[in-house]
Amino acid sequence: MTSHTEQSAVTVLGLGPMGRALTGAFLDAGLRTTVWNRTPGKDRELVERGAVSAGSPEEAVAASGLTVVCVVNYDAADAIVRRGAVADALKGRTVVNLTADTPDRAREAAAWAAERGIGYLDGAIMTPTTTIGTPAGVFLYSGPEELYRRHRPALDALGGAHTHLGEDIGRAAAYDIALLDIFWTAMAGYAHALAVARAEGVSARELAPFAKGIGAILPPIFERSAEDVDGGGYSGEGNPITSAVSSMAHIVHASEAHGIDAGVMRAAEGLARRAIGRGHGADGFLRITEILNPR
Amino acid sequence: MTSHTEQSAVTVLGLGPMGRALTGAFLDAGLRTTVWNRTPGKDRELVERGAVSAGSPEEAVAASGLTVVCVVNYDAADAIVRRGAVADALKGRTVVNLTADTPDRAREAAAWAAERGIGYLDGAIMTPTTTIGTPAGVFLYSGPEELYRRHRPALDALGGAHTHLGEDIGRAAAYDIALLDIFWTAMAGYAHALAVARAEGVSARELAPFAKGIGAILPPIFERSAEDVDGGGYSGEGNPITSAVSSMAHIVHASEAHGIDAGVMRAAEGLARRAIGRGHGADGFLRITEILNPR
Repeated sequence: MTSHTEQSAVTVLGLGPMGRALTGAFLDAGLRTTVWNRTPGKDRELVERGAVSAGSPEEAVAASGLTVVCVVNYDAADAIVRRGAVADALKGRTVVNLTADTPDRAREAAAWAAERGIGYLDGAIMTPTTTIGTPAGVFLYSGPEELYRRHRPALDALGGAHTHLGEDIGRAAAYDIALLDIFWTAMAGYAHALAVARAEGVSARELAPFAKGIGAILPPIFERSAEDVDGGGYSGEGNPITSAVSSMAHIVHASEAHGIDAGVMRAAEGLARRAIGRGHGADGFLRITEILNPR
Repeated sequence: MTSHTEQSAVTVLGLGPMGRALTGAFLDAGLRTTVWNRTPGKDRELVERGAVSAGSPEEAVAASGLTVVCVVNYDAADAIVRRGAVADALKGRTVVNLTADTPDRAREAAAWAAERGIGYLDGAIMTPTTTIGTPAGVFLYSGPEELYRRHRPALDALGGAHTHLGEDIGRAAAYDIALLDIFWTAMAGYAHALAVARAEGVSARELAPFAKGIGAILPPIFERSAEDVDGGGYSGEGNPITSAVSSMAHIVHASEAHGIDAGVMRAAEGLARRAIGRGHGADGFLRITEILNPR
């Protein structure tokens, strides 16, 4: 049923900064690209570059075998896709939802799509808009492998590295959530460190070369500790959780002595103290993974 | 008053893993090294390597012009150093306190030392015991520059990079606190990410290559944003705090849906929402530095 034209065509729903970047990459790769956005006027520059502006989402999705959705969250995605006319037009076609949300929302959306004969892949974009169409982009997908293989040529137009994480539709969102968890928690730690440093007369620029050094030791620790965590080992070799708690108490004290909220560190310290209280004081700090989620 | 022998001699108080590593490096560099530890027996291997075992802390400090203290915290350091006989023996000599604690404790200790004619430098070791005596060690100092210059030859025996941060005695501890704040908060984020990933059927090993990738983008962000933070700019270019809060809400939701405590992320999200509530929704996430510590 899908014609050759539809195979080399793609529709993008949502023209925020990321949706515009995705559309630009599809256009650069020579794909016939149809666009639609809830608020009109966002497509002007893209139309000048060759995009086709659709008058409605049902018209947009009917123009291509593949529709890429990239809006603020699943509530916004559902408000567009789950209308009768759009769902009807999507029958027999594929949606790749690059909208970020939780794994349960992805699973629920996939079930909805399956009932209506709509192919459904969930995806996550792990890198900023500036990386789209370049080798630096990182894209994760989950859902039926056959669908992924079929649409991979079009998705390759976005550049970067594409990984299919498995058939379980929730996996892309699970990776997305976990990776953003690392990122935003680390950024909260950095902001707090800058606030305490400032109160002590140390500027962000003065701290920067050392902050960079501390940041650089994280990736090898993440890699090295993975086996330990999967195996439940949590070695404290030379750096037991008791020593981490001592540092954390200093941080909380120094912060609050300046009237600076230490809620993030207090929450982390509380988890570490619970691990010690359960007899794991000689283990490494990552033992708190078991406090958070006992297996 | 200090003889040539005392100039090329060093005393180490505290023989935990770090104190033993420091002593080993001094011995390897050929310095006459005297050691003492509250619990006896920790010096056996060091004495075999040439260290002199002192019978008391006052005997230990009297043997060298420079005494390096490295114990669990300032309470432990004070319990050793602030006894009459030890303080008397330290008069005219120098203490470099590599014990980690808060900037106010360092300032208080320096004032105590000044009243007794004891030279005092505070220091922080930013790298693990395994780096001591190697080029990978990172040492920070603060206090009188003249003292730092005088003892730098002996401290160089520890290997690595040594930085004098200024005369304000609290600076080494302030940097230490800020850098450990970044480190332990990021580690708490990693542990939480692993717990949520596990609940979603994703192992630490599966997540590792992507976690490594996320970790690797932090150092350049730390460096790039420093000027912005010092200037109070907090540009949200393409990544406003409203979008961070949307991700944070997904993380909290996915975490708590699995019964996993999301206290660390909830605290960070609360700060971000306060920044938005004060009209900074278009700014970058580091705007929360101002919520924590308004200038």
